[in-house]
Amino acid sequence: MDGQADLSGALIAELRAVLGDRVSLADSVRAHHGKDESYHTLLPPDAVVFPRSTEEVAAVVRACVRHQTPIIPFGVGTSLEGGVGAPHGGVSVDMSGLDRILRISAEDMDATVEAGVTRKRLNADLRDTGLFFAVDPGADATLGGMAATRASGTNAVRYGTMRHNVLNVKAVLADGRIISTAQRARKSAAGYDLTGLLVGSEGTLGIITEVTVRLFGVPEAISAAVCSFPSVDDAVKCCILTIQSGIPVARIELLDSVQMDACIRYSKLDYEAAPTLFFEFHGTPDGVKEQAELVQRNATDFGASDFKWAVRPEDRNALWLARHDALYAALALRPGSVAWSTDVCVPVSRLADCIAETRSDIEKSGLLAPIVGHVGGGNFHVIFLIDPHIPEEWNAARRVNERMVLRALDMEGTCTGEHGVGIGKRRYMAAEHGEAIAVMRTLKQALDPANLMNPGKLLPD
Amino acid sequence: MDGQADLSGALIAELRAVLGDRVSLADSVRAHHGKDESYHTLLPPDAVVFPRSTEEVAAVVRACVRHQTPIIPFGVGTSLEGGVGAPHGGVSVDMSGLDRILRISAEDMDATVEAGVTRKRLNADLRDTGLFFAVDPGADATLGGMAATRASGTNAVRYGTMRHNVLNVKAVLADGRIISTAQRARKSAAGYDLTGLLVGSEGTLGIITEVTVRLFGVPEAISAAVCSFPSVDDAVKCCILTIQSGIPVARIELLDSVQMDACIRYSKLDYEAAPTLFFEFHGTPDGVKEQAELVQRNATDFGASDFKWAVRPEDRNALWLARHDALYAALALRPGSVAWSTDVCVPVSRLADCIAETRSDIEKSGLLAPIVGHVGGGNFHVIFLIDPHIPEEWNAARRVNERMVLRALDMEGTCTGEHGVGIGKRRYMAAEHGEAIAVMRTLKQALDPANLMNPGKLLPD
Repeated sequence: MDGQADLSGALIAELRAVLGDRVSLADSVRAHHGKDESYHTLLPPDAVVFPRSTEEVAAVVRACVRHQTPIIPFGVGTSLEGGVGAPHGGVSVDMSGLDRILRISAEDMDATVEAGVTRKRLNADLRDTGLFFAVDPGADATLGGMAATRASGTNAVRYGTMRHNVLNVKAVLADGRIISTAQRARKSAAGYDLTGLLVGSEGTLGIITEVTVRLFGVPEAISAAVCSFPSVDDAVKCCILTIQSGIPVARIELLDSVQMDACIRYSKLDYEAAPTLFFEFHGTPDGVKEQAELVQRNATDFGASDFKWAVRPEDRNALWLARHDALYAALALRPGSVAWSTDVCVPVSRLADCIAETRSDIEKSGLLAPIVGHVGGGNFHVIFLIDPHIPEEWNAARRVNERMVLRALDMEGTCTGEHGVGIGKRRYMAAEHGEAIAVMRTLKQALDPANLMNPGKLLPD
Repeated sequence: MDGQADLSGALIAELRAVLGDRVSLADSVRAHHGKDESYHTLLPPDAVVFPRSTEEVAAVVRACVRHQTPIIPFGVGTSLEGGVGAPHGGVSVDMSGLDRILRISAEDMDATVEAGVTRKRLNADLRDTGLFFAVDPGADATLGGMAATRASGTNAVRYGTMRHNVLNVKAVLADGRIISTAQRARKSAAGYDLTGLLVGSEGTLGIITEVTVRLFGVPEAISAAVCSFPSVDDAVKCCILTIQSGIPVARIELLDSVQMDACIRYSKLDYEAAPTLFFEFHGTPDGVKEQAELVQRNATDFGASDFKWAVRPEDRNALWLARHDALYAALALRPGSVAWSTDVCVPVSRLADCIAETRSDIEKSGLLAPIVGHVGGGNFHVIFLIDPHIPEEWNAARRVNERMVLRALDMEGTCTGEHGVGIGKRRYMAAEHGEAIAVMRTLKQALDPANLMNPGKLLPD
């Protein structure tokens, strides 16, 4: 597929035949659908459609295929690597109209939702069941988008990523066929893992229209703790020991001293501007108390000071406030700046080194860039705070990012732990996957021979 | 690929050029490699090779492809659906020579082993690290075989199946290429999940030669409990409530009254021949005590009697003895019989119904067949005890099995929770997967166009 697609009048007519006035060519609508929350350039689609069912999505796909026109799924636009842009033009498929919660089973602890349902909406609907959907990437993303990008977040260390939380998906493939990837059983040894293949495929193999996810019981008790360490290395070692001990921590977040400085200024907190771990514990009242005591003992062994522990919701919230407001705090460090958030993930034994070397690169570059990490899984984020009017800052950030990615690969890590590939990380896919990239191309070619499903994403040219 | 492959002298010469005398045409060796632990007919390969490295496996594959000869990987032959037989002839690739533990990282809690390493061997090597490999299918299978069949077992409810425990694999594809499916990071959003695609592919897309697996910390304390219930329904409801409450039970096993009767006779135990749950709890000493108390409360609510709880290893072992010896106990119910073990998995809300209807079918058929279940995940096994000289018993078991599989599919379950498809469950793949079976075929065709990788398995003709 080369160059810009030309949206034919015939295609628009076919789309209108299916969707009526739920087809938009308006500039503002196209612009809204051509950019996510990332630093990537606006790449507007030629049209935006608003289907309300799997069958309508399939009809859209068939029409686009007849006209050899790219198809780009859109959730709520919270992706971070340019996954929703239209580098080759085409039709953006806005999934917000597929917004039904189809089934909740308290006994099976699972739910089936249409792809446009957001995670907060699902959790609101679950309120009376004693269950919750655990994956929490921060943004209120759609379940379809989260599945497509294999989203993750702060509590993956306890509850897993979308890879572990999706039981099956319904998807429309590149030829308009509708498939279900698996039954609803908790496990199966019956054939190829099509669920796993679609989860994380970023719309390049098909459009996910329904998702069945695991749910977990709302813990009887939740408590939180915060403590600061002499160095990132000490904080990471405390985290490793905690996980080795089998303490089932629900969240362990690392904020480096630059990020803590930002949070202290922003939220007027009484903390040190030192590397800091935020913990959350889920369990019974006795269980969370025991977890916190064990963690405190580990933390003290690694020089931690100022261990603050909180059980009451208002105290917990106060403790976690700094973490939740990390991005706003970072932006407030430099009014007028924009944030470029990037992530890598390495084996946790290499995490402290990877962060230290990246921090050193940042200092040398003269950039301002706090670091926040889902440290239990070896995943961390750098938030470059860039003056959008200074091109050299973009270039410096690009260089630091590239060195960080290559460093992570060198440490047996990945170019993205949870943000996805989109447009931004394509250039690293060959370095990360070697010969396996050819296998990915073979799969793409087999399932989307005309390269119409979200072209220009995930796989390098 | 039609009919029986003819093993050419030229191929044998090429194999010998690579492997020397590690190529066998002996009847006894071929027979050993043509049958697993299942009821399936012996289907010996034409030759057996014993490579010792990934490169040797790749050379074998390339030679076989040149001569259009099927390739069947073999671990230790503990599979249960005929996965190792050679219905189209060909070369069995015995992986036992790939037996090195390549790397253990206590900090990262992972290990990389060659595919021929068995799980007990790995756990023996881990003894001094405070870590263990958690997936436990009963048999001392190889890690490569367990990955290829997406194995699972009694503690999947806490630690997951091979799908969750494999971080990456090295594999030889159908054209002899060697790929690694992922880096060693705990999570990644970088491209298609090739690890997930190979795990559970049963040698039909490639031969897994190395596996990197997650490890867990050996719990500080382990305790066990056993209690019996008025009905399977009560036992399952107790199980559902326990999991909903978030109690992190490590194992929950259900033995039905027929199986308990067998165990009581075999192990001379002081139990009731009633539906019985076996629990194992992992945690801190206080934690396992609390878990057991919470479970006992749940169990009492569902009419359980005779709650036996044990902390000391010798007492725990005594409690679990009946479960571990379940197969021998079943066979002893009918001396001279052979066991045909089959499994399905359904959403746990349907488990009691699925077991009850299956039990009723068994009674009507006149067969003797205990039922054992990994009840936390909705997975259960029927062990048909068959007089091998009475064909009508095989036919009756086939009918009960078929009705059970179709019932499970009807209940949104799967034809196999953990045994795999092999030869035995191929006939149900289309009913289970519908349109998605065509996608599986497309993937197979794309990665193995000549259909030489374990042909006649997993996918229906």
